[in-house]
Amino acid sequence: MMHTLAVSLGERSYPIHIGPGLLDRADLLAASIAGRHVMLVTNTTVAPLYLERARAAFAGFQCETVVLPDGEQYKDMGTLMQIFDALLAHRHDRRTTVVALGGGVIGDMAGFAAACYQRGVAFVQIPTTLLAQVDSSVGGKTGINHPLGKNMIGAFHQPRMVLADTSVLDTLPGRELRAGVAEVIKYGLIRDDEFFVWLEANMDAVLARRTDALVHIIERSCRNKAEVVAADEHEGGVRALLNLGHTFGHAIETGLGYGEWLHGEAVAAGMCAAADLSVRLGRMTQNDCDRARALIARAGLPVELPAALDVERFIKLMAVDKKVEAGRLRLVLLDGIGRALVTADFDHKILRQSIAACRASA
Amino acid sequence: MMHTLAVSLGERSYPIHIGPGLLDRADLLAASIAGRHVMLVTNTTVAPLYLERARAAFAGFQCETVVLPDGEQYKDMGTLMQIFDALLAHRHDRRTTVVALGGGVIGDMAGFAAACYQRGVAFVQIPTTLLAQVDSSVGGKTGINHPLGKNMIGAFHQPRMVLADTSVLDTLPGRELRAGVAEVIKYGLIRDDEFFVWLEANMDAVLARRTDALVHIIERSCRNKAEVVAADEHEGGVRALLNLGHTFGHAIETGLGYGEWLHGEAVAAGMCAAADLSVRLGRMTQNDCDRARALIARAGLPVELPAALDVERFIKLMAVDKKVEAGRLRLVLLDGIGRALVTADFDHKILRQSIAACRASA
Repeated sequence: MMHTLAVSLGERSYPIHIGPGLLDRADLLAASIAGRHVMLVTNTTVAPLYLERARAAFAGFQCETVVLPDGEQYKDMGTLMQIFDALLAHRHDRRTTVVALGGGVIGDMAGFAAACYQRGVAFVQIPTTLLAQVDSSVGGKTGINHPLGKNMIGAFHQPRMVLADTSVLDTLPGRELRAGVAEVIKYGLIRDDEFFVWLEANMDAVLARRTDALVHIIERSCRNKAEVVAADEHEGGVRALLNLGHTFGHAIETGLGYGEWLHGEAVAAGMCAAADLSVRLGRMTQNDCDRARALIARAGLPVELPAALDVERFIKLMAVDKKVEAGRLRLVLLDGIGRALVTADFDHKILRQSIAACRASA
Repeated sequence: MMHTLAVSLGERSYPIHIGPGLLDRADLLAASIAGRHVMLVTNTTVAPLYLERARAAFAGFQCETVVLPDGEQYKDMGTLMQIFDALLAHRHDRRTTVVALGGGVIGDMAGFAAACYQRGVAFVQIPTTLLAQVDSSVGGKTGINHPLGKNMIGAFHQPRMVLADTSVLDTLPGRELRAGVAEVIKYGLIRDDEFFVWLEANMDAVLARRTDALVHIIERSCRNKAEVVAADEHEGGVRALLNLGHTFGHAIETGLGYGEWLHGEAVAAGMCAAADLSVRLGRMTQNDCDRARALIARAGLPVELPAALDVERFIKLMAVDKKVEAGRLRLVLLDGIGRALVTADFDHKILRQSIAACRASA
């Protein structure tokens, strides 16, 4: 039951293959490799689970491996250099292909290495988390963190192919699966009310990791993101809608310290706050807001902002987000389920009220 | 007597302004800056000479400065990070402009920082060496070195504008001026015999740094390079012609250790070797070869390969050049003055004879 989705970006178009057991499909992988050389980039968590199978699928190629430490704290220049070191030590030339086997951090770093090695080589993604499958697979964003800011150094670099094997999600911890579901719900909220309704009816199948449900949410999420990205490859306009819940979410992640809440968890609570604010501003009905909150709760995700951050601190944390332009805070809000917009046109007093109301009681 | 050349690259097109005293033209600079923030990147050699004038020209902007150590040995990840550190410490956002004030190393590093900062910000070049004015101003190549190879990490990133002030060449050491002239002669040799004839008639004016001569060689060199790059932005085909003399030259630079010969000097001797080989292969007349060698000599540049490298070592050094594809050494050769081609179709015995004949007697 393999589904293939085409991401249309002119000469940088590429396919996303979605289905169970695809990691063993040497034929699909071979079709996306231009030369004879492959550099497989993975981490210490994924390597024991899937590295040998991936290497076997690349048996027809000269395939080397870099195994990086696992974790957002390693998404830095020093770890990135390990990929360049390996490429040069094994004399990979411009016709090499860098393959990311892992979650978002591995995809971001391997993709950035591919963007910069000899000014750009081919890149293939094999995302192994739901979040990476529904989010990092589309958009071409790659990069690393700087001590003074997340994702501050990077490039847009599109993969030649994405292979989303739903079977590898079997080994994903439940908490990480749910964090991925947060981004899935996001697509329903911002532009696909039909998908939102489907999720209301099928959340149990998703959480039970039923293959058909997983294939559907990955395909539908990637399709939604691909449509947005095709309209705005380098992030000037509609692409900002993908940040629903993210400005609130980044405030949570920064305020609590990275690693406390998962990104998807912070986004989930952030989407609830965005919905609440949208109701207070007369944009969204209370009923739509309740449905959003209920679906997020059913996915086992947080619906309240953490009590540990008080309102003033929260506002301050939101103000340093990248989405601030010329000093004005811009937020993604909702006019209803499936209808998002970006605006700086809201009363900050009401934002404060909303944050206060959305905070968990301490 | 300002000349403006348009580099045509679709939506990435940009102007090159050439003339004396342009560093003070705040109006030209302002026209190329999108936001209010400017990060001036320069080095310890250029800063005492021109930094204050450049800062004055950006008086209407919030302008910060990074002064890097001078030299190819600092074109590395650690030095690059200093640019990111400064951008983040001063809270530059996506609408910032990175300005390179310096030679090729500063242009490569500042350009690469601009390519990667927040996945790409605006870039302006103020090249202060003749080599940078005629070579790095066009092509969009940016990057840094890796301990295992030069320019191995980088990106294609076009500037918004290049400002080539011929007056700043007054302070350029003579040896560096001549090294720049090597690349100027190269354009005549590979595709512009009329320009070659002009150089034969006007080399004295060039070496005397007469403004009209400098403006002419910069304009003509950039025009030639721009035409090649427009036809081949990401280096798949004709752009390889720009490497005349470079495979020999890289062998010299690597073999003697970087810093022994200047890049332009190595290219000069390499072009003489390429011309000699072209004669031996029956491609070029002896007379054309003699004219090439005579012009290079008149520019005060080396016309012989260094005696310190014997033939076998030289061949080995050439084989590790980036231009080797699938194990076959490809060279830029000449069918005559103004007519270059790339070929792997030559007898290696004749290449050895040519290298032996071109070596200086020890």
